Amino acid sequence: VRQQTAESYRGFRTAGIRLTEEVVPSLMDHRTDTLGDTLGPIHQFDKAHLVMLSEREVIPRADGAAMLREIRDMEKRGVEATRLEVGGGMHSGEQFLIRRLGESVGGRIHAGRSSGDLGEVGRRVAMRDSVLVLMNLTNELRAVLLRLIPDTVDAVMPGHTHGQQAQPTTYGHWLSMWAYVFARDFERFRSLYSRLNMSPAGAAILTGSDFDVDRARTSDLLGFNEPIVNTMDAILSHDDILECTAVMAVHGANIERLGEDLMLWSTAEFGMIDFPDRFCGTSSIMMQKKNPYAPQAMKALGGETAALSVMALYVEKGSTGLPIMERHATETAMWSAFANTKARLRDTIELLPDIKLRRERMEYLAGAHWAQATDVAAALVHEKGLPWRTAHQIVGILVRLTEERGIAPRDVTTDLLDEAAIEYMDSPVQLSQDVLQRALDPRAFVERRVLLGGPSAAAVLRELPGLERGLAQDIQFMKDADARVAAAAAQLEEAIDALVGAKSGAVAAR
Amino acid sequence: VRQQTAESYRGFRTAGIRLTEEVVPSLMDHRTDTLGDTLGPIHQFDKAHLVMLSEREVIPRADGAAMLREIRDMEKRGVEATRLEVGGGMHSGEQFLIRRLGESVGGRIHAGRSSGDLGEVGRRVAMRDSVLVLMNLTNELRAVLLRLIPDTVDAVMPGHTHGQQAQPTTYGHWLSMWAYVFARDFERFRSLYSRLNMSPAGAAILTGSDFDVDRARTSDLLGFNEPIVNTMDAILSHDDILECTAVMAVHGANIERLGEDLMLWSTAEFGMIDFPDRFCGTSSIMMQKKNPYAPQAMKALGGETAALSVMALYVEKGSTGLPIMERHATETAMWSAFANTKARLRDTIELLPDIKLRRERMEYLAGAHWAQATDVAAALVHEKGLPWRTAHQIVGILVRLTEERGIAPRDVTTDLLDEAAIEYMDSPVQLSQDVLQRALDPRAFVERRVLLGGPSAAAVLRELPGLERGLAQDIQFMKDADARVAAAAAQLEEAIDALVGAKSGAVAAR
Amino acid sequence: VRQQTAESYRGFRTAGIRLTEEVVPSLMDHRTDTLGDTLGPIHQFDKAHLVMLSEREVIPRADGAAMLREIRDMEKRGVEATRLEVGGGMHSGEQFLIRRLGESVGGRIHAGRSSGDLGEVGRRVAMRDSVLVLMNLTNELRAVLLRLIPDTVDAVMPGHTHGQQAQPTTYGHWLSMWAYVFARDFERFRSLYSRLNMSPAGAAILTGSDFDVDRARTSDLLGFNEPIVNTMDAILSHDDILECTAVMAVHGANIERLGEDLMLWSTAEFGMIDFPDRFCGTSSIMMQKKNPYAPQAMKALGGETAALSVMALYVEKGSTGLPIMERHATETAMWSAFANTKARLRDTIELLPDIKLRRERMEYLAGAHWAQATDVAAALVHEKGLPWRTAHQIVGILVRLTEERGIAPRDVTTDLLDEAAIEYMDSPVQLSQDVLQRALDPRAFVERRVLLGGPSAAAVLRELPGLERGLAQDIQFMKDADARVAAAAAQLEEAIDALVGAKSGAVAAR
Amino acid sequence: VRQQTAESYRGFRTAGIRLTEEVVPSLMDHRTDTLGDTLGPIHQFDKAHLVMLSEREVIPRADGAAMLREIRDMEKRGVEATRLEVGGGMHSGEQFLIRRLGESVGGRIHAGRSSGDLGEVGRRVAMRDSVLVLMNLTNELRAVLLRLIPDTVDAVMPGHTHGQQAQPTTYGHWLSMWAYVFARDFERFRSLYSRLNMSPAGAAILTGSDFDVDRARTSDLLGFNEPIVNTMDAILSHDDILECTAVMAVHGANIERLGEDLMLWSTAEFGMIDFPDRFCGTSSIMMQKKNPYAPQAMKALGGETAALSVMALYVEKGSTGLPIMERHATETAMWSAFANTKARLRDTIELLPDIKLRRERMEYLAGAHWAQATDVAAALVHEKGLPWRTAHQIVGILVRLTEERGIAPRDVTTDLLDEAAIEYMDSPVQLSQDVLQRALDPRAFVERRVLLGGPSAAAVLRELPGLERGLAQDIQFMKDADARVAAAAAQLEEAIDALVGAKSGAVAAR
Repeated sequence: VRQQTAESYRGFRTAGIRLTEEVVPSLMDHRTDTLGDTLGPIHQFDKAHLVMLSEREVIPRADGAAMLREIRDMEKRGVEATRLEVGGGMHSGEQFLIRRLGESVGGRIHAGRSSGDLGEVGRRVAMRDSVLVLMNLTNELRAVLLRLIPDTVDAVMPGHTHGQQAQPTTYGHWLSMWAYVFARDFERFRSLYSRLNMSPAGAAILTGSDFDVDRARTSDLLGFNEPIVNTMDAILSHDDILECTAVMAVHGANIERLGEDLMLWSTAEFGMIDFPDRFCGTSSIMMQKKNPYAPQAMKALGGETAALSVMALYVEKGSTGLPIMERHATETAMWSAFANTKARLRDTIELLPDIKLRRERMEYLAGAHWAQATDVAAALVHEKGLPWRTAHQIVGILVRLTEERGIAPRDVTTDLLDEAAIEYMDSPVQLSQDVLQRALDPRAFVERRVLLGGPSAAAVLRELPGLERGLAQDIQFMKDADARVAAAAAQLEEAIDALVGAKSGAVAAR
Repeated sequence: VRQQTAESYRGFRTAGIRLTEEVVPSLMDHRTDTLGDTLGPIHQFDKAHLVMLSEREVIPRADGAAMLREIRDMEKRGVEATRLEVGGGMHSGEQFLIRRLGESVGGRIHAGRSSGDLGEVGRRVAMRDSVLVLMNLTNELRAVLLRLIPDTVDAVMPGHTHGQQAQPTTYGHWLSMWAYVFARDFERFRSLYSRLNMSPAGAAILTGSDFDVDRARTSDLLGFNEPIVNTMDAILSHDDILECTAVMAVHGANIERLGEDLMLWSTAEFGMIDFPDRFCGTSSIMMQKKNPYAPQAMKALGGETAALSVMALYVEKGSTGLPIMERHATETAMWSAFANTKARLRDTIELLPDIKLRRERMEYLAGAHWAQATDVAAALVHEKGLPWRTAHQIVGILVRLTEERGIAPRDVTTDLLDEAAIEYMDSPVQLSQDVLQRALDPRAFVERRVLLGGPSAAAVLRELPGLERGLAQDIQFMKDADARVAAAAAQLEEAIDALVGAKSGAVAAR
Repeated sequence: VRQQTAESYRGFRTAGIRLTEEVVPSLMDHRTDTLGDTLGPIHQFDKAHLVMLSEREVIPRADGAAMLREIRDMEKRGVEATRLEVGGGMHSGEQFLIRRLGESVGGRIHAGRSSGDLGEVGRRVAMRDSVLVLMNLTNELRAVLLRLIPDTVDAVMPGHTHGQQAQPTTYGHWLSMWAYVFARDFERFRSLYSRLNMSPAGAAILTGSDFDVDRARTSDLLGFNEPIVNTMDAILSHDDILECTAVMAVHGANIERLGEDLMLWSTAEFGMIDFPDRFCGTSSIMMQKKNPYAPQAMKALGGETAALSVMALYVEKGSTGLPIMERHATETAMWSAFANTKARLRDTIELLPDIKLRRERMEYLAGAHWAQATDVAAALVHEKGLPWRTAHQIVGILVRLTEERGIAPRDVTTDLLDEAAIEYMDSPVQLSQDVLQRALDPRAFVERRVLLGGPSAAAVLRELPGLERGLAQDIQFMKDADARVAAAAAQLEEAIDALVGAKSGAVAAR
Repeated sequence: VRQQTAESYRGFRTAGIRLTEEVVPSLMDHRTDTLGDTLGPIHQFDKAHLVMLSEREVIPRADGAAMLREIRDMEKRGVEATRLEVGGGMHSGEQFLIRRLGESVGGRIHAGRSSGDLGEVGRRVAMRDSVLVLMNLTNELRAVLLRLIPDTVDAVMPGHTHGQQAQPTTYGHWLSMWAYVFARDFERFRSLYSRLNMSPAGAAILTGSDFDVDRARTSDLLGFNEPIVNTMDAILSHDDILECTAVMAVHGANIERLGEDLMLWSTAEFGMIDFPDRFCGTSSIMMQKKNPYAPQAMKALGGETAALSVMALYVEKGSTGLPIMERHATETAMWSAFANTKARLRDTIELLPDIKLRRERMEYLAGAHWAQATDVAAALVHEKGLPWRTAHQIVGILVRLTEERGIAPRDVTTDLLDEAAIEYMDSPVQLSQDVLQRALDPRAFVERRVLLGGPSAAAVLRELPGLERGLAQDIQFMKDADARVAAAAAQLEEAIDALVGAKSGAVAAR
């Protein structure tokens, strides 16, 4: 007789049933400590599945109630610790119930499901919950960005391309860019969420079962939007992992770029910003050092999420259903990446408001290296009717002359401009000194750019209400999404109450 | 005097203006033959920008009209060839116009724009156009899948997990999975499209300009949904590339998996399907070979798109605006990946309907290796009220016994089942031979699974109308999206007509 | 007064010295529990550095001896726990010493070094030690492969390309391939080892120091081959990480491919091999399942190491010395990948000898699907003098005819061959039935291939001594390499003995 | 009768032999224009194989001679064009010969080989040849670096870590680092070369053949070191691709980092170096721009090679021999990456000597931001016997005070230092003004570092002879390797001469 006693039950894999040997330890990756973020969701699925089975009377209601009572008892004692006591892993719920209620009752929980939907439900709920947190944090970050804009739209600084100074802009304009970037990250998460928050429950391993399960009910009890229809698709398609890790990689790359901007601007050579000391460390040998820790951690996120995305793509390569255990590798890396993404968003939310701008240095740089040159040419077009290209070439010569002669932009004279014009087209341009001076002023450069989305204070502030409205809508979306999850959890407890109450005492009578 | 004559004009980079040397040939990546898919879009942008400048009178209408007339002349002579004649590259429009009209007219086209918006507009339009093609092809593929389902819902075959036979399902159920997979791919493309089809035009390099440009007008003329607001964001954020390559990688991974399924099933050992000869090659040494070319090309797409995604993430790493030329590497790889994705979708659309199913072999396999075991246990639950786990363990022992004794599933007797039951729980289960036989029949296994999304013909066909409705909506979406692009192109030509007609002859009078 | 008392000393980063705030917890990644495999090596470096400083009298010998005594005391109490007590992290040695001996003595350990060489020494020693383990395990695996060859050179089976049967070969021939593959992996590790086992010690952060350090002495005491000469190179170049993760990725891909072969052959449809049960699991729903865990874990390694390689490349992108903390992400992933590579090698070493070959099935498959066709054409060349291409085309037609008519290879007649010949060239080939039969026999096919490296038993066994010699040399290399590390450790302890003994009691006299 | 006439022969894949349909055009990837760098090597293999077959009399010598004569004729007419005329692809040699000599002669070339060894030989020779070019270019780059060192060992500049100024060093010290980096790259290429330059020829597709081929002879004629022994390994293992792309990725990452250093230092804000104009471009809108093209192209190489490595790893995933056509994707990307790596090495070799150092700015920066702080603490240790940590903390306070009070490093007084000391330990340190000044001088900082590998001119120049010797050895290695390839090519032509001469006229007599 191989049937185990309640106390000794070690799970369905015990040697002597189907297989004749225990799995070697190096391949046992099913303990609670490797379930990552899925432990809680798997526990919830145990409950929701039991409720559904009981309500449909796929199992006797009394048995269902008995099991649910034991699970509530487990919750009082601590879910994680209790599950670990009985061996851990995704089947620890069943193992616990069999040890407590014997196989004749506890052995009924797994009707109509498989490790497949356990794993997939656990994974999807855990991912869904983390994605919701990331969405909320992204909104918090957007709110911080919007709050900082009004006070920084006059902080003139150089913008760069090809690593070279391009044109003057402002810190507020730069913040506004990030508000749009993270609004798009939110959109990507929201779009992902619509596909991610779908229920595989009841699909078992790929064909469902011939038990009379109600997939919609389990889906509702777990806060999913609805069941994934095709049962093979539900368990064996993993484009949701590929999409999620890809979206995390895009988000990670955005965080990374933000970190790179901050790193560069905080070098002594740029000297444009300063971090609060608590986001920095110093050196054991170079005591002058104020190493920016926060932006480096932001940069690391790009690497971690890019690697995660590659791991997911690589591991999933293969025919449908072939790669199964390989997925553990992806998931382990994914729970870590979720944790680090949350940490980096929280850092950034706290860091940004406390960054100190060195406004004088920023504006000095914007005027000292010819970032404003574009508008000297534009002045020639506006004032003198020159074609753009002619004006552009004249000022190109002008810049070269100043470089050859060591003249700073602010010291340029109309004579020098005429010298350049004569070199290019044999005649002077005769721009007035006044116009030239305004053209050379980086602050005026910025203020002239009132076009849609431009860097002038007017243009940036004009868009702020729109950004705020967009954020408000997304915050509302999150309230609804979070509420849906909370309502499902409450509904699940109510359903358990109903079952446990109604059948109270029935088990004892068995 | 450095000003060039019309004939000799070689562009604004000529040595002697700003710089003193010509760029070394190994770094000149701006010729038409490296513009990839962006040549046409850049040409359109030249036209739209000229229309907008002329309408707003940022440049004299007569000059605008003259330039547009020349561009139409270029179109008669062939855009690509003509542009290559004048040196190629994204500024070949301006170069052509200056050579034809002199710098005094042709030198006006570039007012209020930069290589930045040229590159970004060209890239986004080219990506948008390719994404629209991919979306249409994805819909065609979905249509093929749906058409093939009704005739294949009775083609019983084994489903696999961990590389081992799992449970019987059908080819139609498998096709239905793919219909859902590609519906999600379409959703991802549609979501991407909403962020991709936004206009950077007028944002110049990061601050726009102080010319009175109308960004909305240019956006409309190019078929964009609307301008990207923040001008720095418009040019220097590239999360759209990261998202697009990521979505392509997810899509590529799906195509790859489909190819893997087909490859595996077409091995002699599986022997479940056969390809039309035109998708195969033979060998120069092994004349028996019928090498499946199409699925291997599908598999290669996974590698190409995964690599593209890594290249994009790697190349974009850095502070805002720092990586610029590096993007050429990504774009070159992206145009290739678009072309290959289109080719693979077209192959698949043609291949799938002509795959020959070896239905007898498929059904034989589904019954020969215990894929149906689940339902023997289920029968014990349904008929004998056993807990699932007890039934599961008994059948586990049964399977082991058949293996030890070399008994095929179909030859299993109720006696053997009882032997297993006795071994497990000291008593027989006494299932009737009839019930056992039905439990062992893979076709019956499938037919019992009528649950939502299950593999039975009834369940699969029940979902078909929903899939068809979804596809119909997405086809309508594509009609609208394609129409929008076509309408914009028409609107642009009309605007040119208006300008060219009204000011006809004006240039000659200059 | 900011100087800390011995008990309270919390390290050089304490707020109030250089910086005014403590680092936020989310950015404190310096605790012992995140040092990964580098804790031991950093401890060794503390000792070696103290020995060198004392011997050179960069610090008073008495102070050096006092510190070394305390460190030995720490070793008695447990290095990891003690270091964690004083705050953990790479500077826990100094912190421990200051707490025990006050800053006046303990504060001397860090003269002439930096976190830079602490981190780099710790990392390189840890990598070196893991690479040596991988090299030894690779040799063990090679030994297993060589042992299994003689008994399997007669196990005829089909070889595949394009997923289709190509030609008959043997399991022993396949094992021999892997012996060469892993010999090359060993070579790659050995080549890497020569660059990896170089000492950064004394290079501080990039310029070394003006203390009179002896870099060669520290290098010797840590078992390095020699110092990395250029001090900037020593700390800020990380191509050794890139190479190591790349070599691990190649090795991981090889292990992955081996796992794929085993997975495929163990499918019911191939049915060529069977795994010992302890490397498999079964299913909670499909009790017939014998899921091969070991090969899936082998496959996962490919994904983990590919991702690690990408993370390293991505994270290191940037100017020299810019990415520093990002490296923690790579290292965390690297220690995990080392552990998993070791585990998978150990699994494979244990698994391979216990795989059960289904020899009859293997040979049946090799003859049932025309894998032997090549040699029917070869027979026409040998016997009838036909050009290869003519023979190839005739047999191509023959195969098609058998397929159209449902004739198995073994039932082919010379008449049918003549029919094919006539179709191709209007005349029969008149091959004797005897020759045809030998051509059609997969075992004979294999035996005919006596060429260098061919699959015949003779050819495979002929190469075995060479493989064994190569392995013996590599085993000797490992003995030497391991001995070098052991000798260095002994030398370090002897040097400590000498210092501690000579100056015994000196500290107390202070 | 299906046999083709000479003129019409279209290859062994013609519909009607084994298969009944022609391959669809989208899957025909075998034309000459997609053979990439392998066209020449495949042509050489045709010749070497014919020589070997003729010498061994596997085919009649007269037929071999006739074919070799035709091939020489093809060479006169142009190999690529002629092969394209007959359909292109790896079998174009055979097709050409059959069209010229009929199937009765031309149909003999393929005896004893397969598309497998054609592809593998072509690939390995092409890779070998490119790797040799990369090795020579790497040596040229090392030579340039060594030449530039003597004149730049006195160019003091700041070194950075964490993006912050760390310590003063010199441009010459930095160049020396790169000399070591590229010496290691050379080592990696050399190690790869030893595994890469092995001959698969004669291994056919995985078992060789029963023809009496001489694998060693073909190997010699193609300049390989020796045959890859195991025939399955020779064709179906691709760790050489994985290693090659990995080594290219490491090399690409090194080139990338060099580009990043140059980019950063050429920003206006750093202003340390200036590029020759020919490696830069300017902007169509910002005429002040001098965009560094060369370093951006260097950076792009990192992305391209990282992506290539991922593609190779992804594509090769699968059981032995399963992925075949997928490899085309990898190869296409690999030929491009080889070309770009060569181009970037050539750019760098030309660029480096012409970079203009702004030495005053470099030295100013090295002293203006406390990079020299380390040595103020060191002075306290040397002069006052303070423990390192005490000195470090005191100077940490000093730096903070200067920052709070806006004092530049050079204006620091001994009083301020004493204030810091008193704050830390209640007593002044009383360092002499003279010592303090020397400690604060960045040039003196560098000169004090005479340790092995340190930045002082003495230390850097001391290592130069060793670097030169290492380079000289590697240049000699290349001479030998290149000579081996040249000798093999000559030997092949001689062998052809011998065959063609001896049997001249024999074909006509047939």
